[in-house]
Amino acid sequence: MNPRPIGVFDSGIGGLTVVRELLHQLPHESLVYFGDTARVPYGNKSPETVRRYSREIAGYLLGQDVKMIVVACNTASAHALEDLQRACAVPVEGVVGPGARAAARHTRTGRIGVIGTAGTMASGAYARAIRAGAPEAYVVERACPLFVPLVEEGWLDHPATKLIAHEYLDPLTDERIDTLVLGCTHYPLLRKVIGAVMGPGVTLVDSAEATAAVVVERLQERGLLGAPSGNGIDHFFVTDSSDRFREVGSRFLGREIERLEQVDLTE
Amino acid sequence: MNPRPIGVFDSGIGGLTVVRELLHQLPHESLVYFGDTARVPYGNKSPETVRRYSREIAGYLLGQDVKMIVVACNTASAHALEDLQRACAVPVEGVVGPGARAAARHTRTGRIGVIGTAGTMASGAYARAIRAGAPEAYVVERACPLFVPLVEEGWLDHPATKLIAHEYLDPLTDERIDTLVLGCTHYPLLRKVIGAVMGPGVTLVDSAEATAAVVVERLQERGLLGAPSGNGIDHFFVTDSSDRFREVGSRFLGREIERLEQVDLTE
Repeated sequence: MNPRPIGVFDSGIGGLTVVRELLHQLPHESLVYFGDTARVPYGNKSPETVRRYSREIAGYLLGQDVKMIVVACNTASAHALEDLQRACAVPVEGVVGPGARAAARHTRTGRIGVIGTAGTMASGAYARAIRAGAPEAYVVERACPLFVPLVEEGWLDHPATKLIAHEYLDPLTDERIDTLVLGCTHYPLLRKVIGAVMGPGVTLVDSAEATAAVVVERLQERGLLGAPSGNGIDHFFVTDSSDRFREVGSRFLGREIERLEQVDLTE
Repeated sequence: MNPRPIGVFDSGIGGLTVVRELLHQLPHESLVYFGDTARVPYGNKSPETVRRYSREIAGYLLGQDVKMIVVACNTASAHALEDLQRACAVPVEGVVGPGARAAARHTRTGRIGVIGTAGTMASGAYARAIRAGAPEAYVVERACPLFVPLVEEGWLDHPATKLIAHEYLDPLTDERIDTLVLGCTHYPLLRKVIGAVMGPGVTLVDSAEATAAVVVERLQERGLLGAPSGNGIDHFFVTDSSDRFREVGSRFLGREIERLEQVDLTE
């Protein structure tokens, strides 16, 4: 039994889709969430910059005495996971590995698509992780840079969103994939539009669900689970003003955000 | 005669539309450009965070011995201009005032529209600046958060861009404005689509042009112009990896970027 919190971080708000899954699968654990809203987004930044930011945040979370760190950001998982695993004394899990393994399990034809930010796609991290589990898999990756701003604008069902989804996804339909990994934590909010464009023959893999399941396993393996009677406490830290995070974040989390604090990493 | 460079900064790439105008109107001046590409965009960040980042950059530019600072970012101009004018020993000019004055000069009916990022629009800075010059003006402001990612995606003429432009701009047509301020340095690249939606009866005001003209005036007033035979040198600094800046930036600048360096403000 270990009552220390699980640390979760993202460049901003998107990682809350992972938190929602963690709260669902681990209702008795305490969580500390860190959203780097002053420097969001990471998707168009260089690997070096993303690694530097990730190290700063991991340091902050370790200062909060977390027992595990979940990198709930695809771009940071793609660029910084190994770096953090080497540097941190606690287990560190990202969203790329769990999403990739879930895709490898789901596919029947071995033809898998992955969508994400420019940074995540350029890293090739998903293709590598999928091929590690399914060496014969045919993997097509596609960056969809407009999906995040569309989600943040709240245009989840707008005609422009459908048009843009077709532009990005029609080439994946042409590739006859049977499984599509939503390789960005914002994309589950576009599940309906993405599903409509891809059609019923394509399974959508949400990395958030897959990641939460892996976190449960890791905690069990290492005897780090909290008391089953525990009363989970959530604490949220952001680097920019908290108002917008509170408002948009509750949409991602599916409930109100209570303990929320703004901190400055550069001081 | 003053051979010191003019300092120009922006959250990222957009400010290069201002640089292009400065190079055009002041071909003999030296320029130092600072793009905060590691923390871009500013448009969705809080006033406090934007002020903090702007102060850091102004400090860096003063360290480069600039004779004047041009805040070539609408969001930073809206939130941080007065703060910087108080803190800096050199003249500081933003893009909001020149754009607003140009709109007040151009309007015949007194009905003016302004478009920009969520942060710039929420600040109300354009409406205040326009009314300072034209107290009777009717000003309508509209945030267009998807325009920046569309420009960065290079979709300057895509059907989705037209659809989104209609969604954002049709309410301004309904308001019967005769002048529209492009209150974001990215928007001049969408001039064609925006012009098509607004129709020929609406004058588009590009703050970049207006700002460069004001910079010339300020330097003249204070005897800070460089030698008319001067051989302008440009030096560009960015906070994230320079490759993408070089590539996309040359589209904004209309020519190659030569002296480009990555720096870290937090060290």
